[in-house]
Amino acid sequence: MLTRADAEAFDRDDPLKDRLSAFERTRGLYLDGHSLGPPTRRALLRLERTAREEWSERLVGAWNDDGDGGWIDLPARVGAKIARLIGVPPDDVAVSDSVSVNLFKLAAALLPPGKAIAVYEGEFPTDDYVMQGLASLVGAPLIRLASGAPLAGRTIGVLIKSAVDYRTAAAADIARFEAVAREIGAFVIWDLSHATGVLALDLARDGARFAVGCGYKYLNGGPGAPAFLYCMRSEAERLKNPISGWFGHAAPFDFTPDYRPAPSAKRFLAGTPPILSLAALDAALDVFDGVDMRAAEAKAQRLCAVFCTALAASGTDFEIAGGAAWRFDRAALAIRRGAHVGILHKDGYAIIRCLIERGVMGDFRAPNLMRFGFSPLFLRHVDAFDAAQALIDVMRSEAWRDPRFSVKEKVT
Amino acid sequence: MLTRADAEAFDRDDPLKDRLSAFERTRGLYLDGHSLGPPTRRALLRLERTAREEWSERLVGAWNDDGDGGWIDLPARVGAKIARLIGVPPDDVAVSDSVSVNLFKLAAALLPPGKAIAVYEGEFPTDDYVMQGLASLVGAPLIRLASGAPLAGRTIGVLIKSAVDYRTAAAADIARFEAVAREIGAFVIWDLSHATGVLALDLARDGARFAVGCGYKYLNGGPGAPAFLYCMRSEAERLKNPISGWFGHAAPFDFTPDYRPAPSAKRFLAGTPPILSLAALDAALDVFDGVDMRAAEAKAQRLCAVFCTALAASGTDFEIAGGAAWRFDRAALAIRRGAHVGILHKDGYAIIRCLIERGVMGDFRAPNLMRFGFSPLFLRHVDAFDAAQALIDVMRSEAWRDPRFSVKEKVT
Repeated sequence: MLTRADAEAFDRDDPLKDRLSAFERTRGLYLDGHSLGPPTRRALLRLERTAREEWSERLVGAWNDDGDGGWIDLPARVGAKIARLIGVPPDDVAVSDSVSVNLFKLAAALLPPGKAIAVYEGEFPTDDYVMQGLASLVGAPLIRLASGAPLAGRTIGVLIKSAVDYRTAAAADIARFEAVAREIGAFVIWDLSHATGVLALDLARDGARFAVGCGYKYLNGGPGAPAFLYCMRSEAERLKNPISGWFGHAAPFDFTPDYRPAPSAKRFLAGTPPILSLAALDAALDVFDGVDMRAAEAKAQRLCAVFCTALAASGTDFEIAGGAAWRFDRAALAIRRGAHVGILHKDGYAIIRCLIERGVMGDFRAPNLMRFGFSPLFLRHVDAFDAAQALIDVMRSEAWRDPRFSVKEKVT
Repeated sequence: MLTRADAEAFDRDDPLKDRLSAFERTRGLYLDGHSLGPPTRRALLRLERTAREEWSERLVGAWNDDGDGGWIDLPARVGAKIARLIGVPPDDVAVSDSVSVNLFKLAAALLPPGKAIAVYEGEFPTDDYVMQGLASLVGAPLIRLASGAPLAGRTIGVLIKSAVDYRTAAAADIARFEAVAREIGAFVIWDLSHATGVLALDLARDGARFAVGCGYKYLNGGPGAPAFLYCMRSEAERLKNPISGWFGHAAPFDFTPDYRPAPSAKRFLAGTPPILSLAALDAALDVFDGVDMRAAEAKAQRLCAVFCTALAASGTDFEIAGGAAWRFDRAALAIRRGAHVGILHKDGYAIIRCLIERGVMGDFRAPNLMRFGFSPLFLRHVDAFDAAQALIDVMRSEAWRDPRFSVKEKVT
């Protein structure tokens, strides 16, 4: 039986506990870090500095590098910070656009003529949508693979694959996928949106060559923060960014008539990046300075385990998305997962609304998925324990049946 | 002979003089509004509110519309504000991504099979670069038209055309281009980047169906502010956004497997927009509330005329980009132009550096173009007069020949 005292003991031994104070205090228990990370104090201050000192005072001059680095190099500087978190060389990541646009650019650049784009059923919807658009534009077949279907023997040019499933949090075995993809001559583009910042990713070791991911979830970069794109250096040289805007040019301010791509992932930049949003992301990433990502992953898994173990001990039946209940034992922890827990319930919408009123913020995804995110940098183990107790209480008391919780709002 | 007293008289009669105080004060004379507009006080306050109240306190809940409008509707709400400035219905403009990405999306959606993409020589470089990428992706021919070359008789699917030339500020006759384009069955995508906010655009009257433009120049939306995209409603229905991300979906949060495009220009949204940057743009646009764009255009033209007339009276020979010197007489004012003045000089780089040291900020574009922007909302006629005197003095004294002004920095 896991007690609150056990959770407190985990907190005392938490190697990441010094990070908690880097964040603006939020009211209640914020379990939506998998959707929108909260701001660090440093990110808020940086945003003010960028607006009040750079934009207001240096104005257009702030683009220039005056030794401290100008706006012009931000996509590369931020990329280098993210590169460490995913285990690739600093120059191989560029920050730009949205995940949707980055997926499009990479997939369009990679797709060999006559080959298909493949997406697993149940993939994050926008990834699938974007591939529908690309397939239609270039006349390529789009294959929807059944969950768990093997790749071997198929004619696939590009496979889009989330490293962590947005519903179940199941983590893909990147090395295994890459090995099979190489056998069949396919390129995998990893969507790291639900993985970056909570898994000790090592893309170089695992042979991953291409990836995209978002800046606003566990990286806490702010709402709609620019996304990132990873392209292995040796592959970049031969790839054409279809949206060949000036920021991907080797010398954007030479204003030459012909596009000449930058070396490295930087060629996948396109138009002028949104600097205010990018500056916030840049500063947000500093909270990862000195963080051993293996410790971050271990803590994320432990937070989820505390939550699930407390739920399992309640006697109330919770259907954990992805099948097996995720208990606090070594066997369950051996399954590698992301940092959120999905729970299926046909009235999940009302349950989430009811919890929010009690100060426990989770989210809901149609048609029946409740999600609770356990970001390792701003949450304590007692938070995971208390969140479970709140959910147990809402289910036992049936408080969520109050009709006001069923009135639909847009939920993100 | 135009005197400073004449410029002061223009300022007294200026119908837009109440707008000057909406802006944060900048040091010196800021003539770079055609590159990066300065912040309004309102934009800075809004950015702080979005960061400190919405992101920090409402967190993920701020996406939802609680009556005051949530982040989710910002791309449409900001689009409606821009729609008025360009003379189209409010629902026909969406705000998203960068100019490069928006050009790509529209051109890819419009290009009929077998037809060519056309761009004029000397078009803004990134527009041409992006079309090189699209042409290569879909295997379409890319035609570079000589300046002034007629369209009639050509097999063109899509023409990209700046409404205001980034060098000469020459304004295109939109209605005339559209008439010819319809005759040859081509679609024109107008790049309004150097036109929006300084010309009384009336795209609906002129028959323009498609346009893109940037938010960070005369709209003062902040560095790299999101761009806009205009698509006439009756055309939108048949067009496929190739980057069909979830924000362009009719119901993004239904998480349906198949992409179903939103009606109207909103289908050209793609991924999650950068909210911090978008909020700043939203508030920045309020400075245009109640501004008659004909008055804004008239003032911009008059500011340019004051500058050029003062230069012409100096006896120093200035080569105005685009040919005819732009004097302060009725004949010259009958030529419709944007709000910047380009001056050609092989040592333009050093001259601009020298002027910046004297507090007059213009910009330089390789190989030999100096630009001075005369935004009608934050500049006075005496500013235009004083800027001319500073330039005349730098040329007469040859102060720019000091070698320190030739040391190259990146200039944006």
